[in-house]
Amino acid sequence: MRIYADNAATTKMSRASIDATLKCMEEDYGNPSSLYSIGQEAKELLEQARKDIAAVINAEPREILFTSGGSEADNQAIRSAAEIGKKNGKRHIISTAFEHHAILHTLKKMESEGFEVTLLDVHEDGLVRLEELEEAIREDTCLVTIMFANNEIGTVQPIREIGEICKRHGVLFHTDAVQAVAHLPIDVKADNIDMLSSSAHKYHGPKGIGFLYARKGIRLTNLIEGGAQERGKRAGTENVAAVLGMAAALKETAGNMQANIEHMSAMRDRLIKGLQEIPHSALNGDAKKRLPGNVNFCFEGIEGESLLLMLDDRGICASSGSACTSGSLDPSHVLLAIGRVHDVAHGSLRLTIGEDITEEEVDYIIKNVKEVVEYLRGFSPVWRDLMSGKAKFIL
Amino acid sequence: MRIYADNAATTKMSRASIDATLKCMEEDYGNPSSLYSIGQEAKELLEQARKDIAAVINAEPREILFTSGGSEADNQAIRSAAEIGKKNGKRHIISTAFEHHAILHTLKKMESEGFEVTLLDVHEDGLVRLEELEEAIREDTCLVTIMFANNEIGTVQPIREIGEICKRHGVLFHTDAVQAVAHLPIDVKADNIDMLSSSAHKYHGPKGIGFLYARKGIRLTNLIEGGAQERGKRAGTENVAAVLGMAAALKETAGNMQANIEHMSAMRDRLIKGLQEIPHSALNGDAKKRLPGNVNFCFEGIEGESLLLMLDDRGICASSGSACTSGSLDPSHVLLAIGRVHDVAHGSLRLTIGEDITEEEVDYIIKNVKEVVEYLRGFSPVWRDLMSGKAKFIL
Repeated sequence: MRIYADNAATTKMSRASIDATLKCMEEDYGNPSSLYSIGQEAKELLEQARKDIAAVINAEPREILFTSGGSEADNQAIRSAAEIGKKNGKRHIISTAFEHHAILHTLKKMESEGFEVTLLDVHEDGLVRLEELEEAIREDTCLVTIMFANNEIGTVQPIREIGEICKRHGVLFHTDAVQAVAHLPIDVKADNIDMLSSSAHKYHGPKGIGFLYARKGIRLTNLIEGGAQERGKRAGTENVAAVLGMAAALKETAGNMQANIEHMSAMRDRLIKGLQEIPHSALNGDAKKRLPGNVNFCFEGIEGESLLLMLDDRGICASSGSACTSGSLDPSHVLLAIGRVHDVAHGSLRLTIGEDITEEEVDYIIKNVKEVVEYLRGFSPVWRDLMSGKAKFIL
Repeated sequence: MRIYADNAATTKMSRASIDATLKCMEEDYGNPSSLYSIGQEAKELLEQARKDIAAVINAEPREILFTSGGSEADNQAIRSAAEIGKKNGKRHIISTAFEHHAILHTLKKMESEGFEVTLLDVHEDGLVRLEELEEAIREDTCLVTIMFANNEIGTVQPIREIGEICKRHGVLFHTDAVQAVAHLPIDVKADNIDMLSSSAHKYHGPKGIGFLYARKGIRLTNLIEGGAQERGKRAGTENVAAVLGMAAALKETAGNMQANIEHMSAMRDRLIKGLQEIPHSALNGDAKKRLPGNVNFCFEGIEGESLLLMLDDRGICASSGSACTSGSLDPSHVLLAIGRVHDVAHGSLRLTIGEDITEEEVDYIIKNVKEVVEYLRGFSPVWRDLMSGKAKFIL
């Protein structure tokens, strides 16, 4: 059996998305900025895709800016809000401690440019508290950026309420929705979202393409200067084939959203129930307010990396945290943010299931994780100390 | 007949490039940062592509940074050199007046950040003068950025000599080689190039992917902050499929370079000869020191846009200048830089032929451009004034 359970890292492209991308590569190769017919045809396809994408989140087409992915969109959103803030003498940004590094590292840079950043606590359940957000907002706050759903533990924030608070205080609200778009209902107007980042390869579209939604009236700052593409806000020949692949993937995945949510939530809960039978284990993040496909556990007394490699041998693709940092030996900043201590955070396992996961596959994962955890604990000096009472169990 | 003669705007993807991209999309969808086998397989493919690409320009694999295209590479190169310069108290940059906007607009931004920019004259022939470059270099010069081959008029600069001068003065040398890579021999070591930008869709690869070569030892500044991809210098999940498509396209196109140069230069010269028969016309840029596929003319008394639309009706895809600015009514900054006056610059035509162009196609282009120019002049009040002596011919 081979089960790909790392859909938060990347997804397999859908047939519809591959076909849309391929057709464009083969036939519609014109540069959308060119005046002749094959250029204009490419432009029409691009603009139709923009409409289709905008419709999924209830935005207007002109509010969608194509980028090379979620990281670029995050960077541009923060820089734009900072630039607007600077003009109004506002240099304070609010975020959370467990954002994606595309947010956290950009915020670090903004600090070096004279901005002040407040990181909200996400508590043990991986959720911000609205009253703490409201307390944190100051006269000089120019931006609140809080991710829609966390990429490691999957917790889903009260986005609409956060947006409402920001709106009331006249503060721009950006959300990194890379894990949420196509998987959860999003209505940028009703949810009071000013800016939102998305990446196609998280919903069965191509890698290297994404978009930034920016409510009209928000003046974007260019990250990439040059040609007049994307209303002058993002230079570079438009990646038409990838945009068409993104639109096809988004329409398809979002089109099945309700059915996907129901099926995946049931499978997720079955998986959580099964893994909770492992002694000295704990689910990370709130059990219900989380992405339908996300399961994240800590197991005491083991190393996450060995667990992954052994699961890989058994045909299960999983991760310990974010793929973007998996070369690193540091424990996940997300798990530390929800209060896991270093030793426990090292023994983490993220399983992010796909839309087509079956009960049989879930049971196969449960069986194998149980076996591998037990096997690894048999060799673990940490586990021996825990069992002998030399060290104390935390979970 | 249908002739795509706008290969400087974008090229049609080759079969080899499409196949490499498609295979990866279908089979090798793992995230290269993931530890399990399909992630590591994707990583191996990515690193093999990096080796293949590096080999074409005689660079080392670790000197190749994948970007979303030429514009991003240009932006990052300039920002990196500026950052290095700032640390050494050097805030002067030398470039030319007819660079791509990805360079010129980034330089404008650097000016607003306290840098001083000197733009070298490119003279009537579209070529910089080495002695003028040498004179322009100052104690506080941190960067010389001069394009390898111009995207509108195709003139090829004396890159090796420029690099030699920069090296002698200890100044970093970057070249926007978007139009040159795969089409002209490039050896970054022998050519004394410190940084070089490239874009895959200019040599039959996918749109939305490119690379920045940066000699080892040059500390790059991130344009996009986030995950640790690309040695921490370019965040975002790697666009593996597009990178493989780029490598396949580059190997193929560069592999046929000598034969392509011979055939295309012959076809280019035939085209130039044919179009020179049109009265009151002029070739833009040096006739020989130009890209093998580039032909750029000005015709007095006509509007470039009408010419393009009529040629499109006859199956010929051409442009008046850069696709990146073709929505604009301003005359080309490149043509103004080589001394064309506004009226003449408006009547420009760029034909950039492909590797597989035939004599028959060239003759078809000549015949149709002649006919259309004559037809349009018949309706042109400017042409009437010129013919009646009310206005004076420039060409």
